[in-house]
Formats: sequence, structure tokens, C-alpha cells
Amino acid sequence: MFIELINTGTELLLGRTANTHQQWLGCRLADLGYRVARQATVSDTGPEIEQALREALARADLILVTGGLGPTSDDLTREQVAALLGRPLRLDAGVRAHIERFFALRDRPMPAGNEVQALVPEGARVLWNPLGTAPGLAIEARPNPFRRDGAPSWLVLLPGPPRELQPMFNDTVVPLLRERLPPAEDSVSRTLRTVGVGESLVQARIAEPLRPLVATGLELGYCAHPGQVDVRLAARGPEAARLVRPAEETVRGLLGEHIFTAADEELETVVVRLLTERRQTLALAESCTGGCLAHRLTNVPGASAVFQAGLVTYSNAAKERLLGVRAETLARHGAVSEAVAREMAEGARRGNETDYAVAVTGIAGPGGGSAAKPVGTVFLALASARATVAEHHLNLWDRETFKQVSANQALDLLRRAVLGGRA
Amino acid sequence: MFIELINTGTELLLGRTANTHQQWLGCRLADLGYRVARQATVSDTGPEIEQALREALARADLILVTGGLGPTSDDLTREQVAALLGRPLRLDAGVRAHIERFFALRDRPMPAGNEVQALVPEGARVLWNPLGTAPGLAIEARPNPFRRDGAPSWLVLLPGPPRELQPMFNDTVVPLLRERLPPAEDSVSRTLRTVGVGESLVQARIAEPLRPLVATGLELGYCAHPGQVDVRLAARGPEAARLVRPAEETVRGLLGEHIFTAADEELETVVVRLLTERRQTLALAESCTGGCLAHRLTNVPGASAVFQAGLVTYSNAAKERLLGVRAETLARHGAVSEAVAREMAEGARRGNETDYAVAVTGIAGPGGGSAAKPVGTVFLALASARATVAEHHLNLWDRETFKQVSANQALDLLRRAVLGGRA
Repeated sequence: MFIELINTGTELLLGRTANTHQQWLGCRLADLGYRVARQATVSDTGPEIEQALREALARADLILVTGGLGPTSDDLTREQVAALLGRPLRLDAGVRAHIERFFALRDRPMPAGNEVQALVPEGARVLWNPLGTAPGLAIEARPNPFRRDGAPSWLVLLPGPPRELQPMFNDTVVPLLRERLPPAEDSVSRTLRTVGVGESLVQARIAEPLRPLVATGLELGYCAHPGQVDVRLAARGPEAARLVRPAEETVRGLLGEHIFTAADEELETVVVRLLTERRQTLALAESCTGGCLAHRLTNVPGASAVFQAGLVTYSNAAKERLLGVRAETLARHGAVSEAVAREMAEGARRGNETDYAVAVTGIAGPGGGSAAKPVGTVFLALASARATVAEHHLNLWDRETFKQVSANQALDLLRRAVLGGRA
Repeated sequence: MFIELINTGTELLLGRTANTHQQWLGCRLADLGYRVARQATVSDTGPEIEQALREALARADLILVTGGLGPTSDDLTREQVAALLGRPLRLDAGVRAHIERFFALRDRPMPAGNEVQALVPEGARVLWNPLGTAPGLAIEARPNPFRRDGAPSWLVLLPGPPRELQPMFNDTVVPLLRERLPPAEDSVSRTLRTVGVGESLVQARIAEPLRPLVATGLELGYCAHPGQVDVRLAARGPEAARLVRPAEETVRGLLGEHIFTAADEELETVVVRLLTERRQTLALAESCTGGCLAHRLTNVPGASAVFQAGLVTYSNAAKERLLGVRAETLARHGAVSEAVAREMAEGARRGNETDYAVAVTGIAGPGGGSAAKPVGTVFLALASARATVAEHHLNLWDRETFKQVSANQALDLLRRAVLGGRA
């Protein structure tokens, strides 16, 4: 099944608004066993929308169009679709009553301009919109004059605002798909997220062992983020699970503890969950990551159950006063050193009476490097009741990526310790 | 000039990754006087990339392609472009040396797979990538067999990671565009970034006064981010500056101190600059923002000159021990209160001996709210030698957006104080 997504909106092409529909609809459809084959963004003008619709009608079984259903002069999707398919627009009394009620509930008269939203192309299904005035529309082009074989295409028109589109999709489009366009075949997909090993090394380890499965239909994909590589295993058809399951076992065997989740979670989410399950607590001592680690951990709802305090000690004075790092250690080894990282972690753990403390000190750049300690140098330490362990990395990235990668390494050091591998 | 953007990546169609390139490139090109006419996303497979390239080559003067330049088997853009344009791939010794150096600097051997990244189609310009192994490529299809009139098209291939793509675009693609594809006409654009006033209020204040200029050709656009609204004023043609200049004066007159920059800077960059110029120092005391404020400030190169320490005090014990908040104040007013925010700010300033200290305490949600203090409640305080001032806001957003919006409000409180308006 060929699915095409068309996003209308000049503001998307000007970059003034992020295209959140692409991600949201792509994800929802993938979870339902569908796959978007093509996505396009076009401006709000009539000829552009028509051209995109013609191209999609010539190849797609399902076309999702977002935006252009509003009441203003640049909302042209409804009219373009009706004209292209030769379906006259008729005023729908039920939709008109819904729009009137929408304004009445808000103590406002219905503006005359909104009446166009009650126009429905002949033969279209109305997709009700409890959160706005624009209904969605679903139209089957059957027969479809734009396709060589005349095969039908479904056109689904959705409103632009995400808070209207998302419930409408779940409540009305998903049942329509299940009824009229069930997934052609079973599909199975699994994404293993890894940390601590680069994209080319991940591939070097797993590509060859997976080759026989790829030859029989396994889809293998990689997606690299700073400090993280996702491995996606997918297959279609009745044998899908029989391909994905052994592939996952192979990858787990080869990448082992580098895999931190198969559930689309962030690394910080996994760490908070592991600590919460064990009723263990955490303190942080950050220098070069400058609060990035605390910020990411506290993005996780419920982090307050495990996270006690984070000390962002940029200056040497703050390291001494807040963490008890010794002046002598700072003078002898420098602030960016394993010895200081260890004292930072131990000081944070002692002061906050936590099970674990993680410390990061390094040189984020662009300034501050030296021959012995270049920009990108980072020392991590983890203190627990068992021991204090330290790691050294060289993260040659721009400043912001350096912070994210170093934070990932620190979270991973903690994850492995909590799982019992270290410290 | 017809500009088309092609984003390759199955993960974009599956919704596993947001398409940030569309927004970033759309915005940058608009600021440079260009406009993207069409954008498409296709999967990583050869036939899909080829089909999208054929369509674009038939109509576009400039085609920007993102992704698919990596070292793995699903990185096919380079090969597809070379094949379609009939340009053999040749190993470029300079690029190969760059890749080897990239790995050598990281004390790692160059994986054999990365050698494909040194393949350059005949006649292509190499766009250097200081932050990664994949160079960008720029190729002029001249004559262009895919266009009826044979007019040339420029194809620019950019790497997928935003941290590599963005500096490469600024450093190599912008000069190429200026040299080979100058904008068809003069254009002037000015973006004023505001904080502390919502999108509809910004519009309510400036839309009517700007109407006469809009009627004579001024383009007026809004872009809302969490806690920030950008106002974009643009015009084309020889009279462009005569429209944009008075429009900027009007907007400055109406939005005044809400405007924090006209230079595409982040709010934290402005704050670090203002403090650096005044040789003043800062400490932070964060509860609900959980390190977000420290993280954003330390993203600014040179922040260490002004930022002494940040205390992320999630627990009451940490607020008492690290900031000297009194147990009595916590018991009487609760951790989320103006009184605690004030003591946090004063304690952070006193302990770290800084000119300013900013404190944030609130309820990020999803849990933890009450009727008196619902989720979204936030108290800010700013301590200086002159006084301690406090603010109360209700930020009704999801947890992560709440943190960003609250951090923006805290940065803005500090910005206004440093400028002499407050405290």
C-alpha cells in the first residue's frame, strides 16, 4: 500500500513553523502497521496544491492532506479536491449546525466566513471535529482517472492545528483505515537503541552476521544521534516475526550492554526507571556539562523520586565550597582531571547522602584547551557505596553536542553501575 | 527561482525523527531572500531517491538534498546522484586525508566503510565538513537533460546530522548561492525576537498599525516558540528597505523592552553578553526547571566568565543545606512559593558572592499540583545588591515546555534587571 502525506502551508516552507504532522502521523501509521512512502510540503496556493494532488493520485492508495480547511482566503484544500475529482460542494446542514454550536458555546456569533467550512464534496464522509470548526473529509476516488490502472485512491483531508488533527485521526481515520484499507500484510518492527559505540562500529559488528536475514527480507536501518545509535529491524509478511526475532537476538549478542532499550525510550528515562525500581537516589556534580545532565534527568516525569540535587560548579571556588574538592587536588591536577572528577563525585554523594553521585569535568570549548588537555577532554566519575570509578573520553564535537555526548556517557556509566556491571 | 528541498531518511517517514532540516533551511533561505517552493521526504531506498531527484531536476533551479552521505549501506544519495547525472565517482585524496585525520584525532582507526565518503562525482565541488566525516557536495547539472528547456539545476548534497549540516550550509552553501544563484531581486528582512508577550497579543498590538505598510508590499510574519514570539518584517524589490525600516520603528515603539534581539540570537546569549560587558557574575538556584536554565546559559561560549555556580535543589533538604532556605519558610509557605523563591535567590547570591542570583521554584507536572497551586505554577526571584524582586506565572504546558518557558521568564527577568529596568 502506497501512502502519501501532503502538508499544505507556506509557513512550513518559510521555516516559521515546524512540521510536527510528519512525525506524528508517520509514527502513528507505523505503529498501526502502515508506512508512509512519500511526504511533500507545498504552499497554500491553488496550483501548488493541485499539482501535488495530481502526483499523489497517480500513485497512492491513501493520501493524507493536512491544512487548508480553515475559513480564510488561503484555505483552498477543500475546493481544490472537489474540483479535481469533479465532486460539487454542497452545504451540509449537520456540519453547519456543529459550527454554529461551536461559536454559541463560546458566546460568539458565527462569522460569515466560517460557512465555507460546512461545504462537503459530494460523496465525502465527514470526519467530526469536536475541538474546532473545520471538519475533516474522507473521499474515495473510484474509479481514479489519475491512475493508469484506474485503481481507487482514498483522500483524507485533515485540519492543520495538531490539537484538532490528532484526536480526529485517532477517533475517525483509524477506524476508516481498519474498515476500508486494512494493512496489506503483517509487519514487525523493533528498534534497539545503543550508547557508547559509533555508527560505523555498530555496522561493522552486526552487518555481516545479519546478511543472511537481510537476504531473505529483513530491513536493517541505522539512525545516529549524538552519543547514540539506533538499530531498526523490520520485516513484512507472514514470516516477519521469524526474521525480526533472530535478528534481535543476533544484535543483542553482538552489542550486549550497549543496548539500553527496545522501547523508544530516552537514556535518562531508563536511568530514572532503574533507580526508581531500586529505590535508590542520585546527586550530580557537573562542570563542563553545565546542567545538561540535570536538565535531561528532570525532563523525566517522576525524577524527583530519585534525584536529590545537582551542583553545577563552573568555578574552582564552587567546586571547593559546594563539593569539598581539595584546593591541593585542583592545584596539582587541574580542574579537568580524573582526581578532581573523583572528588566531585564523592563530595556530591557525601553531601547529599545519596546512593550514587555522578561527576563530569572537561573542556567544552571553543576556548580553554591545551596540548595536554585539548578541547573535548572529559573525565567522568561515579561514586557509590562500593567504590568510585572514573572514565576518560575525548569528545571532539561543537560545544552543545559535546555537552550532550558527555551527558550520555555519564548516564551510561550510571546505567551500567545500577545494573550491577560496575562500581 | 524554484528551490526544492529533498529530505532522505526512512526514519523521517516512520516518524522516529523530527524533520528539523525543513524548518532550519526554510528559515535560513527566507532570511537570505530565497523561498523554498517544494519539499519532499523520501525513504533511504535507491528507487525512491532517484524518482524524487528526477522530479526535482525537471523543475528546480536549486535542489538541496539532506542525508544519505554516511558510511553505511543505506546511505545512497551520493551514488544515486552520480548515476543519474552520469558523473563517475572518483576517490578524492584530500577528502580521504580529512577522514583519516578525523579518526586519528580521536585515536581510532578509520573503518574501511568510511572510504566511500571520499568518493566525489566528477566535476562536483567538495563542501568541507569540519565536524564530521561526510563532506557535502555541490554539482551543477549543465545542461540538464531532465528539463524541457535544458536550463541548469544546482544540486547541493548535505549531511543528515544538523550539527554538521548547519555550519556547512552557513560556511559553504551561502557563499555558493551568493556567487552562482543570487536572489532574483533585492530583499530586506528583519526578525525581532520578543519575550514575555503571547502571539495573539503581539499581533493585536502591531497588525493594525502596520496595515498601510503591508498594503504597499511589506511581508509580516509571526513565529511562536515556547515563551518567545518572533516578528518577521520583509520586503522585496528596490524599495524594500523603505518598507522594512519604518515597520521596525513601529514595532519597536509598540513592543519596546519585550524585544530582546534583532540579530537571531538566543535570549541566553544576550544575557551572557550583557553580564560580560558589565563584568558582573551570576549564580542560579533551580527547582522545577531542573538545570534547564544552567544548561542554556552554559551553551553560550564564554559563559564561564559570568556564571559561577548553579544549584539544582529538587528536595527540601537540598534547598536548606545548599541555599540556606529556612525550614520554617518551607513549612509555612511550601516549597513552591514566593517566600521560598526569594530565599533561594538570596541564598545563592550570598553563598556564591555573585552580583545576581536567579531562583525558580514551581510545579512542572504532570503530578504534584493542587487547587491552590496547580501544575504550571512558577515563582521566580532575582536577588541583587539593590533588592530582591519576585514574579509569579502560570505556565500551562507539558513538562518540557514548562521548563523552557519558565527558564525564558527567568532569563528575561535577569535581562531587564541588568539593563537597569528592575531590581
